Amino acid sequence: MMKKKSLQGSNIQLSHGSGGIQSQILITELFYKHLKGSIVGMGEDAGIGEIKNKMAISTDGYTISPLFFPGGDIGKLAVCGSCNDIAMMGAKAKYLTASFMIEEGFLIKDLEKILESFSKYLKESGAKLISGDTKVLPKGALDKIFITTTAFGEVLYPNLSAFKIPEDTAILLSGDIGDHGAIIYSTREGIDLQSNLQSDCALLYPMLQPLFENDIKIYALRDATRGGIAGVLNEWANASNIGITIEENKLPIKDEVKGICELLGFEAYNLANEGMCVLSIAKEDSKKALEILHKTQNGKNAQMIGYTHNHHPKSVILQTDYGSKRFLEYPSGELLPRIC
Amino acid sequence: MMKKKSLQGSNIQLSHGSGGIQSQILITELFYKHLKGSIVGMGEDAGIGEIKNKMAISTDGYTISPLFFPGGDIGKLAVCGSCNDIAMMGAKAKYLTASFMIEEGFLIKDLEKILESFSKYLKESGAKLISGDTKVLPKGALDKIFITTTAFGEVLYPNLSAFKIPEDTAILLSGDIGDHGAIIYSTREGIDLQSNLQSDCALLYPMLQPLFENDIKIYALRDATRGGIAGVLNEWANASNIGITIEENKLPIKDEVKGICELLGFEAYNLANEGMCVLSIAKEDSKKALEILHKTQNGKNAQMIGYTHNHHPKSVILQTDYGSKRFLEYPSGELLPRIC
Repeated sequence: MMKKKSLQGSNIQLSHGSGGIQSQILITELFYKHLKGSIVGMGEDAGIGEIKNKMAISTDGYTISPLFFPGGDIGKLAVCGSCNDIAMMGAKAKYLTASFMIEEGFLIKDLEKILESFSKYLKESGAKLISGDTKVLPKGALDKIFITTTAFGEVLYPNLSAFKIPEDTAILLSGDIGDHGAIIYSTREGIDLQSNLQSDCALLYPMLQPLFENDIKIYALRDATRGGIAGVLNEWANASNIGITIEENKLPIKDEVKGICELLGFEAYNLANEGMCVLSIAKEDSKKALEILHKTQNGKNAQMIGYTHNHHPKSVILQTDYGSKRFLEYPSGELLPRIC
Repeated sequence: MMKKKSLQGSNIQLSHGSGGIQSQILITELFYKHLKGSIVGMGEDAGIGEIKNKMAISTDGYTISPLFFPGGDIGKLAVCGSCNDIAMMGAKAKYLTASFMIEEGFLIKDLEKILESFSKYLKESGAKLISGDTKVLPKGALDKIFITTTAFGEVLYPNLSAFKIPEDTAILLSGDIGDHGAIIYSTREGIDLQSNLQSDCALLYPMLQPLFENDIKIYALRDATRGGIAGVLNEWANASNIGITIEENKLPIKDEVKGICELLGFEAYNLANEGMCVLSIAKEDSKKALEILHKTQNGKNAQMIGYTHNHHPKSVILQTDYGSKRFLEYPSGELLPRIC
C-alpha cells in the first residue's frame, strides 16, 4: 500500500531521489504542482508525442552560477536556452524534456522558485514537458542544482544552416551584446553596478516568427551564447567558407556593458548572450527585416552590423571607426565558466 | 582565422568548455573521433530528424559512482538507460541526445574510455546522436562527470501503459534481480566478492522485439531501475488500481546477490537493475512469451513470478514459501544514491 506522507522539512534529502515513496512525494507535491497543465504522459517510462514532418532537436546542460541573477534564474534559462536552439533551425518548441540533478540539502523553497520560473517560461514557449528525471546526489557531489533540457519542435522555416551562407548577405544582430555575460560576472563578483542591467535571457521564437511569416530570406540564425558573437561569426565563416566583415561602431552595446568590459579587460563580442541572435539575411530583405524586428519586444535594438563576402574566406574582419581593420579571432582561453 | 591547435595535456581544462577554439578542439578531436558514423547534424544549433507516427521520448541523468564497474560504465549506462525507457513504451531508439558535464582536471583517457563505450552501445542500439552539449565546470563543482541522455524513437508496439493493466494478467521478470545494485554497492565499498557478478546493464529492445513481432499480448513493460521491482510493482498496482501477488520463491536471484543482501540487510526486490524488466502479459500468452524470452541473450532466465487480480487494489502481496503472505511495500528511505 502506498503510504500517504507529505514533503517534510525544508531541504531536499537523499531519499527524494531514491526511486521509492519519497521520490513519488517530491514529484507529485513539487514538480506536478508547479507544472500541471504543461505535462503530457506522466507516470510512464517515456512520454508519447507526435511531430509531423521534420523536427529540430537540441539538448543543453545548464550549470549557471549564481542560480538567481538579475533578469532570470536557472529555471528560465533551461527553458529558453533549449527552445532558442531549435528556434535557430526555424522550429517552435512543441515538447521539452528536463533532467534535474539536485544536491542533498538544497532548499525546497529555492527549488520551488526555480520550478515556478521554469513553468512560467514553459507556458510562454507553448511546449509541453514530455519526460522528466530527478536525481538527488550526496552533499558535495555537485554544486546545488544542474538542469539538462532537450527541446524539439516541427521545422516551420526549413533550410537554415551554418554551412550554406552565401557571400553578399547582410549580417544582423537582434539586440545588444554582452548583457548576460556582464551581469553574471558582476553578480558573481559582487560588483555593484548601480544600474538596471539585466540578463537578456528570453525566448526568441516570438521575435523570429514574424520574419518567418513575412518571407524574409534568412540563410542562418544562431544565438550567441558561450563564445559570444565572435564565436558564432567565426563558426559561420569556417562552416560556409566565407569572409565576414563587421563594422565595430555598429555593434549595439549598452554603456554599462562597455564599462564592465573596460574595467575587467573583456571584449563584449566574446561575452555570452541568452536572448539575442545573429542573422544572415538576403541583403535586399535586410531593411524589411529590421523594420519587423524593431516592432518586437526583443528585437527593438536590432542592427545591421556587417556582411558576408568571398575575400578572406574563413575569416572575420573587424573594421574599426578609424578605417583600420583587424581579424576578429575565435574566443580563446577560459573566458567565464558556468555562464549558462 | 581558426588557429590550428590540438588537444594538449592529459586533463580536461576549463577552456575546453568555453565555447571558443578549445571547445571546438575537444569536440572535434575527442567526441567526433569516437562517434563518427553515429552523428547526424553536427555543427548546427539543433539536429534535424524525422519520426513518422507516434514517438516515445525519455530523458535521464546519469551520475553513477564509480564511473567504471564490472559489466559497464557511465557511457554504456547513459545509452542503455534511456533507450530502455522508450523500449518500455514499445519504441526502438532512432535518435539520442547527450549532455556531458565534466569536472576540470578529469582525465582525457577516462573520457575516451567513456566515449568508446558510449559509441559501442549507441551503434548497437541503432540510434544516431542528433544533438550534444559539453560543459566543463571548475574543480569541485561536480564529482567527475555526469551525462544526461534523451532517447526517442517510433512506437512500434503501441498502447503499453502502467495505467491500463487489467486483472488476471501474468507478471513476468525478464531476468535475475539485483545484480546492478549489488555490484555497485560492493564495488563502491571495496567488498571483494570473489565471483564474476556483473551489472546486468544492457539494451533491452533486442530481447523485446521478438515478443512484439510474435503478437504476444503485452499490457505493460517497465525496467526496474531505482526502486527495483518493488517500486515498479507498487507503481503499477497504484496506477491501474489492481492487486498484484508475487510468489517469493519464483524471484530469480543469483546466490552472490542473495549473499550481499544477507550481509548488508538489503532486499533484492528493492535493488536497482539496468538490464531487466517487468512484464504484464495476457495469461494465455505467458508460456509462449517465456519460450521466446528464453531464446534471447538477456531473457534466458525469464520467469513468471505472479499475477494481477482485483483483490487488495493498489497493493502488492508477497507470498512466501511457507504459504504466509505480506505486503511488499514501496521502497522507502535513502537506499543507494548514485546507482545510475
